[in-house]
Amino acid sequence: MRPVPRHSILSNYDLLRKEGKISRFSDKISDILHNIYSECISFLSTKSCEDLTSLVTGKNYIAFSNGNKLSRAINKDIFEPNILRWESFRNAIHSNDINSFNADEITKILYSMAISFCASIDLLKDGDQKTPGTFFEYFIAFFFTWRVGIEPTSSIQILNIDGENTELKTDFVYNLGQNKRKFHMPIKTSTRERSIMLWAHQKLLDGVYGTERFMGTPVLLAETKRDKKKKEVVEICLPDQWRVYQLYIAKLKRIYYLDPPEVYKDLSNVFPPLIVKPFGEFFFEWSELMPS
Amino acid sequence: MRPVPRHSILSNYDLLRKEGKISRFSDKISDILHNIYSECISFLSTKSCEDLTSLVTGKNYIAFSNGNKLSRAINKDIFEPNILRWESFRNAIHSNDINSFNADEITKILYSMAISFCASIDLLKDGDQKTPGTFFEYFIAFFFTWRVGIEPTSSIQILNIDGENTELKTDFVYNLGQNKRKFHMPIKTSTRERSIMLWAHQKLLDGVYGTERFMGTPVLLAETKRDKKKKEVVEICLPDQWRVYQLYIAKLKRIYYLDPPEVYKDLSNVFPPLIVKPFGEFFFEWSELMPS
Repeated sequence: MRPVPRHSILSNYDLLRKEGKISRFSDKISDILHNIYSECISFLSTKSCEDLTSLVTGKNYIAFSNGNKLSRAINKDIFEPNILRWESFRNAIHSNDINSFNADEITKILYSMAISFCASIDLLKDGDQKTPGTFFEYFIAFFFTWRVGIEPTSSIQILNIDGENTELKTDFVYNLGQNKRKFHMPIKTSTRERSIMLWAHQKLLDGVYGTERFMGTPVLLAETKRDKKKKEVVEICLPDQWRVYQLYIAKLKRIYYLDPPEVYKDLSNVFPPLIVKPFGEFFFEWSELMPS
Repeated sequence: MRPVPRHSILSNYDLLRKEGKISRFSDKISDILHNIYSECISFLSTKSCEDLTSLVTGKNYIAFSNGNKLSRAINKDIFEPNILRWESFRNAIHSNDINSFNADEITKILYSMAISFCASIDLLKDGDQKTPGTFFEYFIAFFFTWRVGIEPTSSIQILNIDGENTELKTDFVYNLGQNKRKFHMPIKTSTRERSIMLWAHQKLLDGVYGTERFMGTPVLLAETKRDKKKKEVVEICLPDQWRVYQLYIAKLKRIYYLDPPEVYKDLSNVFPPLIVKPFGEFFFEWSELMPS
């Protein structure tokens, strides 16, 4: 068999991983994200697009298909693959002034970019979950790193009374400086039955560094699951379990989504408070998130 | 396309799931496990078997292949696909006297049964992790349920001061009666990067029902990973992380494996104690596992 040439979306993804190791936020990364988005839009525009049957109240979904491959579900109401919108947001970011955008617009721009990549990979590869997951990490870290102005680390030192050095691998942590808040930010395309891991990692940081010294603010893409045969979409949500985790394991400060499930948004109004929001809101509230 | 008839290993697996819903330990389940083992042995005996390159000190691995499919790694030293050994162990179980077997023999018999099924599925299906995982749950639950003499449940009630009934889905829990020990037993073919979930579920039970009222005793198959191209086998182990989980999240009483990684066994000798053992030992020590 002759090797299939790597699609330019994938070679740009390779570049992203390479550059992302040097810095999470840079002009280079910004260029690569731009190129990936632009290529994903053209790639998807050559594919057919169909409506899926939504079993989620108030949401409508589409999917792209390529031969017998069907992409993941895309929330039609916030999907707007418009490169110009992204360009103007990008300019706003690089000039450090995003006040002409509101939270919903930002969520929409970021959702469209992230889901375009995931859907393209669904059509380019076979059951590959790793590539979308890794892309999403670099993608969100770019914006978070810009917003808080420092680079994250992905490991912390564990105090070890016996003198050995134990380094614990973590999700991204952003240390804003001595006596200041620190963010603990897992980034995942979805949680499904693994959601307890978000709270477990928070509990670990609470144990090692003191309760809520790190604020847990995971960023997630969506919780959709589409049945390929029936072309139906559901959201896999476990709100009762999340309340129990928030009560008995640890406290997460926020859970951000690009496409937040409605049932999770309702958790803000009951005890224990668990505030689930569109990620766009982070850009405006981040500096006010104080431990309490 | 004409539908491919379901292989008898798979139709027996369907039966196992059906019967397992009625009772975890019964003569019927025992028959089904017997049939599955016997079919897996004949199925694998028609396939070619090759040595893999072991990167794990002191362990040797083989794999079965079928066309371009290669099964998961099988630890050669404890793999003994001998239906007669199982039959005599089965008789011992049904007559409630296993004293003619030692822990290592039991581990070997159970490992051979479990890995035969997993390897067969690797060759019969494409990248199916769910079927081996579900089988392994029913398989281990059969022996555990026999040993402790009661059926497990897989959900618990959460005390809810607001009067709602909250039912929390859990891994298997075995409630040995009022004021007696209770077991909390996740069953997984491997943990890899999800191992923190074992401690998180324990922490949850500690929070809801009181610290260590439930004893966490997960049962795992192995932690091997084989590279298909290079035909190399490694064990994915994170002993330093496990120590940190045991210190800062919750205490697991035991972690049982059918093929225990050596680096985990060493955790018994350092602080915090974390006792990782071959599952065969459970059969002889279970009644002495008291909360401490």
